Order: sequence, then structure tokens, then C-alpha cells
Amino acid sequence: MTGVGALLDAIADVGRAPSGGYERFAWTGHDLTLRDWFAAEAAARGLALTVDRAGNQWAWWGDPDADGPGVVTGSHLDSVPGGGAFDGPLGVASAFAALDALRAAGVEPRRPLGIVNFSDEEGARFGLACLGSRAMTGTVPAERLLGLRDGAGDTLADVLGRSGAVRPDAYGHDPEAIARVGVFVELHVEQGRHLADLPAGEVAPVAVGSAVWPHGRWRVDLVGEANHAGTTPLAHRHDPMLDLARLITDVRAAAEQAGALATLAKVEVEPNGVNAIPSRVRAWIDARAETEATLRAVLAPDAAGGGARGLRSWGLVQESWTPATVFDPALAARLADVVGRPDSDRPAPVIGTGAGHDAGILAAAGVPTAMLFVRNPTGVSHSPAEHADPDDCAAGVEALTAVLTDLLTGDPAPAPDEESA
Amino acid sequence: MTGVGALLDAIADVGRAPSGGYERFAWTGHDLTLRDWFAAEAAARGLALTVDRAGNQWAWWGDPDADGPGVVTGSHLDSVPGGGAFDGPLGVASAFAALDALRAAGVEPRRPLGIVNFSDEEGARFGLACLGSRAMTGTVPAERLLGLRDGAGDTLADVLGRSGAVRPDAYGHDPEAIARVGVFVELHVEQGRHLADLPAGEVAPVAVGSAVWPHGRWRVDLVGEANHAGTTPLAHRHDPMLDLARLITDVRAAAEQAGALATLAKVEVEPNGVNAIPSRVRAWIDARAETEATLRAVLAPDAAGGGARGLRSWGLVQESWTPATVFDPALAARLADVVGRPDSDRPAPVIGTGAGHDAGILAAAGVPTAMLFVRNPTGVSHSPAEHADPDDCAAGVEALTAVLTDLLTGDPAPAPDEESA
Repeated sequence: MTGVGALLDAIADVGRAPSGGYERFAWTGHDLTLRDWFAAEAAARGLALTVDRAGNQWAWWGDPDADGPGVVTGSHLDSVPGGGAFDGPLGVASAFAALDALRAAGVEPRRPLGIVNFSDEEGARFGLACLGSRAMTGTVPAERLLGLRDGAGDTLADVLGRSGAVRPDAYGHDPEAIARVGVFVELHVEQGRHLADLPAGEVAPVAVGSAVWPHGRWRVDLVGEANHAGTTPLAHRHDPMLDLARLITDVRAAAEQAGALATLAKVEVEPNGVNAIPSRVRAWIDARAETEATLRAVLAPDAAGGGARGLRSWGLVQESWTPATVFDPALAARLADVVGRPDSDRPAPVIGTGAGHDAGILAAAGVPTAMLFVRNPTGVSHSPAEHADPDDCAAGVEALTAVLTDLLTGDPAPAPDEESA
Repeated sequence: MTGVGALLDAIADVGRAPSGGYERFAWTGHDLTLRDWFAAEAAARGLALTVDRAGNQWAWWGDPDADGPGVVTGSHLDSVPGGGAFDGPLGVASAFAALDALRAAGVEPRRPLGIVNFSDEEGARFGLACLGSRAMTGTVPAERLLGLRDGAGDTLADVLGRSGAVRPDAYGHDPEAIARVGVFVELHVEQGRHLADLPAGEVAPVAVGSAVWPHGRWRVDLVGEANHAGTTPLAHRHDPMLDLARLITDVRAAAEQAGALATLAKVEVEPNGVNAIPSRVRAWIDARAETEATLRAVLAPDAAGGGARGLRSWGLVQESWTPATVFDPALAARLADVVGRPDSDRPAPVIGTGAGHDAGILAAAGVPTAMLFVRNPTGVSHSPAEHADPDDCAAGVEALTAVLTDLLTGDPAPAPDEESA
């Protein structure tokens, strides 16, 4: 039996850059090392390892084909560029630690338990997040995924072929793998400070997820007139960088006014020369909110709202729009009761998240799904400063163990269509 | 005898991108084609072609070693990315056209006439402007220049070795080539609208240059805290993009207040991901002004000036500072009289320029130097929209012919040290 801290320590050096951040991109050598680690941890526990048609790894205690569907937990092992040690790996390590705790406690499961490592959750290599879960659930057709290119120009098909882990010609939708999942619970470090900021008397190291917020991405093309920065009088300029300054300010103001998150974090300047007034500045806006109505308000605030003039006037080009993914409310309430709080009889907090997760993909595909979030003292994520205290990681394992015990020995989680009847 | 328009037409297709802009970078195939064209135009006129130790081409009418020093005119044939047809080539084509006009008029020169094509004036390939004239004058040591790398990672030494035009082991300072230049006159399309905006009664298609303005470049590092754009509350963010918006606005305000040019045209965002609050935004500022006092005022405005708070508070890192290069005032006045204006007896306008030129490098190296500027109806330069009307190009050749006639047959231009005596 290995604690979650020791499990994370074992992979702490894999893909760590001199900055302290992680560079664990799908199907690179670092990722293959992490997949070997996952297989070795499964083997050490006598679990049966399978790889689905999308390259996701599954370690089974019990036989989901004979006695399934099973209860599944896990997360992912890849990272964003310069990522932290917890986003992803905490969920996988906690899964192994919880299985150890279940066995130590002598729990006798009525159904199989699976631990999953979803491939390429962050989308850092091919630009599409949750690639492994989208492929497995058939959310995106395999042909489109196989043609995605990484920064070096290689397609996913090329990369998979070289990895030897998955056959490109069999890649994609895997209904059999989905059918083995009766319920999925993903444990994740919180990417925010909801838990850290709870007042005394309401303290909780672990929350249950309610939903993945609706999410949109837009592009804005700010067109100017290329000219020589050393000779063109200010009054004769059409400088799109001045528009960028106003757009950045407008995005922030619109988010504040709507009570949403909106971020302008990616910019491309042409020609991006020190002495060349740009011909064009391209900027991307990412926005999320608790409800779709709030998210829409970022783009076109209520006329009575005053303040920001509304981002729509900037000529936004929508690149994506993802509706809210609401996790099974009955399952969330049941898990919140099981998890509880250390100093009271109240259920664990139930909170939404602005971040996308494989759990959201599975939920949208009809799998009963839940999430657990472990307290993050600073809220920082996608950064080397991402952190969770050892005591909170242990509390996360304890909560996950309790949840799995309930799901493995109690009533099965109802499928969403049964519940709605 | 070939008109300047026909000379430019002959090279109009060389290095032209589908956008209409030119991609004529030093020592590429396009540049070598232009060098061949220069050699052929020289040969067609019976001029003696030499290449100096920095790769600049010289076509001589008369022998500068026996009868020198000579009168030299010319410019460059390379371009910025997406550049126009006139910046550089107009000066070279006008030089050939003026030589033809001198001969047609039966002018008998008292000294040799040289036409020069300076290599890599724009610095688009190796990042250093006026590379050929800096190398020839020894302004920058050859070892440093030979080690500069282009975007593909090749050094100038590699590139020169492959071109066959210059031997890398002999590259650099060429005192003999400089000694042949008794006076240098560079004709250039105006990069601004001084001439285009002159009121009726003061109209002039050609101006004489007074100085290259002082010029500085600075870098600003805006440090933030990397975090997840989908989960981090606005109040918890340290987003350096918001600082960038203020900096862009401040740069413009400081320039307006000081009566200078200042431009923020280059930006690098880390990690530049749509959903990643940046850890750092790096921006570059280019500033120029008629005087060094005005340029300094962009950085730290007079306390009584109000308005902008001064750019120094942003923690500027100076990357370069180039003092004003003042062209020989006596020579400028002499040429302004020779050039004149079409509708009056007044001398041609004498104007400064914010752009760097090989003429500035030669002037700083002690060569008596002057410039002629040809009217640009929009002022646009470093862009496919750069333009000069055919009539104005012809007026430029006429002015250059008159100037060369004066310099070839009149008193020699005094060297700066004689003049200061």
C-alpha cells in the first residue's frame, strides 16, 4: 500500500523543465514513461491492463465484461506547457491509493473497479483538449482527429503509428470500452479558491462537482495599415495595436460587468517587427460563466447595465461554443453526503468548474459522472506554483475511498435516462 | 538611355509575394537575381564593376583609384518583409537614369562617378539594418557580423560562403572602398507626407535631407502569474495583458505629448495560449524625434507637461540608442539650391527623416553625405502600398542629375574636417 504522496513522488522528475514546470505532452517520451509507470502500478496490484481504441489505459480489479459495468475513477497524466504536478496526476495517484485503502479495509465490491489514464486531456500537442475521451466516446470523428498536426507538422496518425501503443487504422470510437463504465468519478485539484476561501465553520478540504460551465472562444481581427514606425506621423497612422489596448480593457470590463470570466491571453501581430506599424493584430477571447445567460451577457450586456459597450461590436468570430455540462445532480448529492465535512454534519460543498475535463466529455456522452475537487491553497493551476497540501491530498483519497465504497457496495448509480423517468 | 520607370519595371517581378509585397532578403536567390541585374546594367553602360569586402556592388564611370575620390550615388535593392517597390530600388534605378542623362547632356565630369548597391540595408535577414555599410565602414566588427544568424539558423559566414559573391575570410572593413567615395548622395522615396502635404505655392516633388533623427529602442517585461483562464476569478489574477493595454496607451500618449514618434509594434506573450493567463508579456518600443531632447522627453516628460506619466516608470530596458546623424549642412544647402522648386525661386525643402539609411552610416563615418527624397502621395512605406508617381520619379532623376552635374563639375564637396576648420 502506497500513499498518494509517494505515488506522485515517483513521477516527480518525469518531464520537469528547468523552470520547475512540466512538459508532459501526449505520446512523447515523457508521456510513454508515465504510461509505463501506470502499467507497472496496475501490475503491482494484480489489475488487468487494457488499452482502448483511443489509447486510454484502463486497469481493472474484477472483470467488467463478465460482471460489469464497473465503477471507474482516474484522470490523466499529461500536462499543459509549464504545468503543475497535480492537474491530472493527483486523480490517477489517488485512484491507486484509494484502491489500496479499499483492499486494506476489506471492502468486498459487488462490481468491478477500473482506474483510467485518459490520453492527451490538455490538448497541448494537437490543440484539442480531452482528445482521448472525445475519441473514445465518438464525440469527434476519428478521421478528423487522426489528421490533427502537432507543432512539428506530424499528424496524430503518424505519432500513434510510431508510438506502437495504438493502431491508427483501429483508432477512435470504442463503444465496448464505454459500456464497461457504469459510473465515472474524477478526482482533481481545484483550479480556484472556492474551498480555500470558505469561512471558519464551513471548512472543507474536498468538494463535489456540479457542472462544467458553458464556454466560448472567439477570434478578433484588428486590421491596420502597415507603415514605417520611424517616419509615419501619429495622425496618419492606422495602428491596430491601439485597438488591441481598447479590446483588452473592454474584455475585462465586460467580464466584470457580467460576473463571468473572460480572458484575452493569445495575440498574434503581423509582421511583429519593432519598427513596423502592424498590418494586423489577431486576438483570441476565452469566456466562461456559471450559466449560458451570463456567458451571453459578456458579449452583449443588457442595455440598462451601463459600463462596457459589449464585445459583439468588435466583430467577434466564434471559434467554439460549449454548452454547460451538468453532472448527474442525484449522484452529486449522494456523493456530497458520503464525503461530508470534517467539523460538521453538513454535506461537502457542491461547486461548478470553468475548466474542461474528461468527466465532462463522459457526462455529455450519457455516462453517470461525478467529480471531486481537492483544496488548492492559492487556486493557481496550469503553472509550476500549482499546489495541494499533503493533508488535503490524503483527505481527497479518503473521500474517494468512501465514494468508491458506496458505489461498489451500494445501489448502482442510475443511468441518466432511468433517472429522468 | 532608359527611364527610371523602365528600370524599375525590369525588376518588378523579382521576389514579389502573392500579397503584392516584396520579399527580397540579402543573399537569397531573389537578391542574387537583383545583383545580376545591377551588374548587367553596369556592363550595358561600360561601367567597371567592383565588389567591396562587405559585398556592396560599385559600378564606376572613370577610375576612382587614379582620379578619385569620386562622386557616388545609389541605394539598396533588398526589402523588408512585405515591402514596397521603391524603398531602395528607386535610388539605384535613378542613379543609372541620371548617369544616362549626364551623358546625353554631354556633361564632362572632372571626377569619377560611382553607383552603389549596398547589401542588406533593411536587416530583414540577420536583424541588423545597414549591414553592408556598417561592415564596409568598420562600424561593427566583422567577427560580430559573420556570427549573426538568420531565421533558419545559418550564420552570415555560412551564407556568404555559399553565395560565392564574397569570401568570408576577407569580409569586413574596407578602407580602400571608403577612400574612393569623395561624396555620397542617396536618393530615396520619402517615408512620410512632408512633401505631399506642402501648401500650394510651396509645392516641391523633391527634398534634400538634413539629418537622420535620433532613435532609441527599449524592451519592457510585464510579469504576471500563469494561471487557468477558465477557473481563476478576476480578482485573483495577475494578468500582464492588462498592463500591456496600459503600456500601449501610455506610449501613444507620451509620443503625442512630446511631439515625437513612438511605437509599440512587437509583442511576445508567454505561453500565448487561449486559456492560459500569461506568465509574461514582452513588448518593444521604438521612438524617434527631431532632437535628442524631444526623444528624451518621450521617456520622462517635463513634470509641468501633465498628461502621460512618463514611460520610464515601466522599467524600460534600453536595447539601442542612436544619436542624431546630421548631414553636412553646407552640402545640404548647396544641393537645395541646385534642386530648387518648380514654381518658385526658393531652394528645395530640407527635411529630416526618422528612418535609418546607409547614407547615415557613411555620414557618421566621416564621408560628406547628402540625401534626396522623392514625394510619396500617401507617405506609406514598408508596405505594398508604397508609391511614388512617375512624374515625381522623373523629377527625382532630374534633381539627382543636376546635383551630380554640380558635384562632378563644380568644387569638390569639402570633407567634414576641412569644413570645421
